[in-house]
Amino acid sequence: MSKKQKREKESGLGISVKKSEDLSEWYTQVIQKAELADYTSVSGCMVLRPWAYAIWENIQKYVDAKIKALGHKNVYFPMFIPESLLKKEAEHVEGFVPEVAWVTHAGSEKLAERLAVRPTSETIMYESYSKWVRSWRDLPLLLNQWCNVVRWEFKHPRPFLRTREFLWQEGHTVHATKEDADKESMTILLDVYTKLIENELAIAILNGKKTENEKFPGALYTTTMEAVMPDGKALQMGTSHNLGQNFAKAFNITFLDKDEKRKTVWQTSWGVTTRLIGAIIMAHGDDKGLVLPPKIAPTQAVIVPILFDKTKKEVLKEAEKIKESLENAGISTHLDDRDAYSAGFKFNEWELKGVPLRIEVGPRDIENKQVVLVRRDIGEKIIIKLSSLAKDAKKALDEMQKELLEKSKKSLDEKIKVAKEYNELKKIIDSAMIAKISWCENSKCEEKIKEETGATMRVMPFGEDVKTGAKCAVCGKAAKKVVYVGKSY
Amino acid sequence: MSKKQKREKESGLGISVKKSEDLSEWYTQVIQKAELADYTSVSGCMVLRPWAYAIWENIQKYVDAKIKALGHKNVYFPMFIPESLLKKEAEHVEGFVPEVAWVTHAGSEKLAERLAVRPTSETIMYESYSKWVRSWRDLPLLLNQWCNVVRWEFKHPRPFLRTREFLWQEGHTVHATKEDADKESMTILLDVYTKLIENELAIAILNGKKTENEKFPGALYTTTMEAVMPDGKALQMGTSHNLGQNFAKAFNITFLDKDEKRKTVWQTSWGVTTRLIGAIIMAHGDDKGLVLPPKIAPTQAVIVPILFDKTKKEVLKEAEKIKESLENAGISTHLDDRDAYSAGFKFNEWELKGVPLRIEVGPRDIENKQVVLVRRDIGEKIIIKLSSLAKDAKKALDEMQKELLEKSKKSLDEKIKVAKEYNELKKIIDSAMIAKISWCENSKCEEKIKEETGATMRVMPFGEDVKTGAKCAVCGKAAKKVVYVGKSY
Repeated sequence: MSKKQKREKESGLGISVKKSEDLSEWYTQVIQKAELADYTSVSGCMVLRPWAYAIWENIQKYVDAKIKALGHKNVYFPMFIPESLLKKEAEHVEGFVPEVAWVTHAGSEKLAERLAVRPTSETIMYESYSKWVRSWRDLPLLLNQWCNVVRWEFKHPRPFLRTREFLWQEGHTVHATKEDADKESMTILLDVYTKLIENELAIAILNGKKTENEKFPGALYTTTMEAVMPDGKALQMGTSHNLGQNFAKAFNITFLDKDEKRKTVWQTSWGVTTRLIGAIIMAHGDDKGLVLPPKIAPTQAVIVPILFDKTKKEVLKEAEKIKESLENAGISTHLDDRDAYSAGFKFNEWELKGVPLRIEVGPRDIENKQVVLVRRDIGEKIIIKLSSLAKDAKKALDEMQKELLEKSKKSLDEKIKVAKEYNELKKIIDSAMIAKISWCENSKCEEKIKEETGATMRVMPFGEDVKTGAKCAVCGKAAKKVVYVGKSY
Repeated sequence: MSKKQKREKESGLGISVKKSEDLSEWYTQVIQKAELADYTSVSGCMVLRPWAYAIWENIQKYVDAKIKALGHKNVYFPMFIPESLLKKEAEHVEGFVPEVAWVTHAGSEKLAERLAVRPTSETIMYESYSKWVRSWRDLPLLLNQWCNVVRWEFKHPRPFLRTREFLWQEGHTVHATKEDADKESMTILLDVYTKLIENELAIAILNGKKTENEKFPGALYTTTMEAVMPDGKALQMGTSHNLGQNFAKAFNITFLDKDEKRKTVWQTSWGVTTRLIGAIIMAHGDDKGLVLPPKIAPTQAVIVPILFDKTKKEVLKEAEKIKESLENAGISTHLDDRDAYSAGFKFNEWELKGVPLRIEVGPRDIENKQVVLVRRDIGEKIIIKLSSLAKDAKKALDEMQKELLEKSKKSLDEKIKVAKEYNELKKIIDSAMIAKISWCENSKCEEKIKEETGATMRVMPFGEDVKTGAKCAVCGKAAKKVVYVGKSY
């Protein structure tokens, strides 16, 4: 074994467990070995390393462009919220205070009032909104911010999925009528978030409304997107709330309408977080590591040149040309020309990191005017003529994007089972799946499920009414809603 | 007076003081009335409103593209730093601890160890660096993050210029040799920051090194850019530090070099902040409000249609066409077609907000195939043929950008006076200017200036050696350095 090989072997690139056998250990290894995140000495907080942060930047780019096109503008509000302000809306404070990190001192001085590190920014923002909104001319007010938030949870932390500090965007809008606020929260859920998750992240979701118990503290209602992970647990991918007039009343946000009458505004808030990176890892990864959907991958194609001393110069020159032609075709491409690593090592590394396409080019390929193209998700090696490479690579990326979503849809379908009775429901939950039930809408039935199975009502799907005569799967009374029930992250 | 006029008058758009007469009050009014920032109930913290945040986004876009082109990658580290970690580098802790905001509780529990809200991220980042850097193959490590930081200063806060929380980018790099670190810190200062400030923000600066007393706590040396505001006070626009091996030793960051020897790394760190927005306001604003350099303006041209009932439709249609042609020429353009406000009100509002170009178009203009073009900085109205508008607007923007920098250079020159003796130095400082002196490099002379005049040594300019035989302006001994001295923000 050469020195290079020995070093490469010691670096332990490979994932040592199968995804299907130990998802939790597999997830931890992928995150560490693909250099997505790392632990720090702050319990429950982690570093987003360059590869993960670049995925986040792609998510940001997509959402930011979409919401700006809809008229939203970005702002930045202070991260600190005085305790008295946080406590202004009763349900809200109850929901968040148990997880608040408190600043009590500055330098050597004790502060007169404790400051919450924002768990979400409704209260600090709406204090300003009450100053800014005066007239119907000021509406709608459509603001958003990209920032960090802190929720000091005491459950077991898990990189991306549950960390005490995370990154997100939070949109906060103000409208003249309930209808405008309804429309805003639905536009964000369906036209921005759902498209992001299905078309860019290639993850199938269930979208709909949360139950009263599960809605955002202080909201009129919450709409949500729920994905289902390979272990059958639901993962909330993002939410959009119609806040009604709850905060508007607590913060006195009113406007003089065209009819000269003073009215109370209607509001929405909505957000997606770095948790989405965790969902991508879980949803698409395999035993070799990460698999990135082409539209969200920081690098879509990596060229690995096969280098021998004699032909090195020629091969690198050709590889440069290939890179240029792919970049010109709009494919973000990296040429891995590192001398200190073997081609085999590079194959493993880029598979681990989930780059959608690998292009191998050696001296014989150049002679034959061809390259080897490998799609990360299916692993099949195909020979491609150099003359049609850009076109074929683009096609491969499009097909991969499409097939990842199809696979995700299939996996989602397989994880859902209809339960008509409580015993069925329990069996489904016990077998790590999602139960689809009819429900009487009584919160006692909801609480019974939670207490006895550990599962919660995840989402009441849009546009799906209960069948005539359907009974609640828990109590047997007349059902009013269809609802998906499952354990969750 | 019509209802509309009455409302508009009451809104009090105008700035009620002259910039030259009361800079501080002028600054406060511009920030409030141009809707750049607003105060909050958290003392010393403010909201960045959409107009200011959009300027920040333009600064981000420029810096982010530049540093990525140089090979840097973005990351995100936790905002919290355990007290023991913050205290690992002795000079660093001394510099920052008096201004740290401390998290002591989470929910209802007291934390075992206090957490600092990051005042800067050296310590939390370098703990990870010591794990990540193993071999020469891992170098250079070129990372950056965009985030919020907190420095709980007890001096009088001032929006953008001095707030307890602010936004910035912080680059943190690791190198094999001192020369590599020297080169990195200089590349950032000269090729990234100086170009940003001179070419984009159109602000003239003095760049060079900080004295030992004024350098970043824990650095080997600090390079800086200093602008001089209209009141003669220096404003530090950004810094780039060669950290030497101070942190590397405290955090044990070493690598196995090609010669199989274990060596200690060399590091740099560097940052620019939302303070730059304050500098733009101060540097270019006038009695009518903000004046934005075209390259950094969120909107470069605003079209104000002159609307009468009879010709409204026709004028708006033409205004739309003009907007399209300007956008196609790469000029970011806003058409202000609001019905509820008069043209005169709109003129004032966009002047206040500093939009570089105003284009007025009314029914007579359309007949004559022309528009009225007004440059925000000089206010002159010129008639432009519609056929050449895009070209002429582009030229006007270029000229404005250039002339703003020229004006800033002239203003900088006028604010600097050479002092050969201590009395001269004192007189210059008393007359609100910057003194250029020769200095013996003894910190006693530096401290004497600070104690007796309140001014500090701002920067020792690059490439300017003391003249042969020059004497220190304070003690009269042989001088070693040229240095600019002044009061500062």
